[in-house]
Amino acid sequence: MTDDAVVLVNAAAEDDVAAEHVVDIFPLSGYYFGSSLNPLFLKDHSLSRFRANYEARGLRTCVQAVILVELFKHPHILLLQVKNSSFKLPGGRLGIGEQDIEGLRRKLSRKLSLDDGDNEAEWEVRECLGMWWKPDFETLFYPYLPPNIKSPKECAKLFLVKLPVSHKFIVPKNMKLLAVPLCQLHGNDKTYGTIIAGIPQLLSKYSFNMIDT
Amino acid sequence: MTDDAVVLVNAAAEDDVAAEHVVDIFPLSGYYFGSSLNPLFLKDHSLSRFRANYEARGLRTCVQAVILVELFKHPHILLLQVKNSSFKLPGGRLGIGEQDIEGLRRKLSRKLSLDDGDNEAEWEVRECLGMWWKPDFETLFYPYLPPNIKSPKECAKLFLVKLPVSHKFIVPKNMKLLAVPLCQLHGNDKTYGTIIAGIPQLLSKYSFNMIDT
Repeated sequence: MTDDAVVLVNAAAEDDVAAEHVVDIFPLSGYYFGSSLNPLFLKDHSLSRFRANYEARGLRTCVQAVILVELFKHPHILLLQVKNSSFKLPGGRLGIGEQDIEGLRRKLSRKLSLDDGDNEAEWEVRECLGMWWKPDFETLFYPYLPPNIKSPKECAKLFLVKLPVSHKFIVPKNMKLLAVPLCQLHGNDKTYGTIIAGIPQLLSKYSFNMIDT
Repeated sequence: MTDDAVVLVNAAAEDDVAAEHVVDIFPLSGYYFGSSLNPLFLKDHSLSRFRANYEARGLRTCVQAVILVELFKHPHILLLQVKNSSFKLPGGRLGIGEQDIEGLRRKLSRKLSLDDGDNEAEWEVRECLGMWWKPDFETLFYPYLPPNIKSPKECAKLFLVKLPVSHKFIVPKNMKLLAVPLCQLHGNDKTYGTIIAGIPQLLSKYSFNMIDT
């Protein structure tokens, strides 16, 4: 009797775990991609500005969106590219006192839905997938706070953002929006950087439910 | 009025997300580590056995435990080492029809609590952290099912296993149990293999609450 009860509890726990790790993804063809007439003003990424901002405001927190679409029956991630330079996840730095989810919605509207009015609430920001820390101004990002680091300089937080079945993307004139397959990102630190190349791992607990529309 | 309501909802959602991502970890010094008089019989890891088992039973599923302890204020992972060969997470292959959590508890009792009677229910197996797939017998593991793969040959599932404040580990005579810091695992594929070297990323969404005892 006791044995049976234990097994039932296990099975139920496992079903719960399984259920929360299924993500519906929709075909790329259901989305509209357009370009705005306006470019996005690009911030100064200099080390001196980073230092000055840290002195004034403390830890810099960047929130970034992992947005999935289906193409050729394989999950793809949406990345932004400025001209032909490095790839970036859609997102950006939080304002002073701004909450993660609120800030990410603001950034997504600004970078992916230009000219489309105020639709910030439409972005369905789900769980945090991972956090990366920069212990000092000129170091790499690490997926943990390194030992003995009391005041890290930057934190990048990745969130799963769930798309509806259709959406109109309007990106700034000076940016490209790309859909890159998980199998191309994995282990490809040189092209995409450590954070983006690690996304397939962060998503590996999920089962993707690819919905035909 | 509407704006305020939206902000409240966001803040609440964020608190929930934050709360579920805190993991208590306890000092290594609170645990007892001993060695059994008995070795563990090591299975034949040959390709021919892998093929024969696949023919007979289909996909091989391995469940593996990510167990955290605190040492020098930094999270460490418990790894097993057979003689001086490769490092492994505690765990192993599921039996036919065996559930993930049930199987992982059985394997943990067998490899980490030898001679200690039937205490399988004591292992607190939490959420799945990641899954790795082997598309064919002689390929690497990938953190996704590669495109066009209909019948993968092996799946490795990593689960977070929460330790109580104290526990008695008794490992087989032919194995060593080690506590390795996250900062040593990250990016160190050559020493630990891709799956173990990726654990710091899989854990990066958690905040560790290191409890002084």
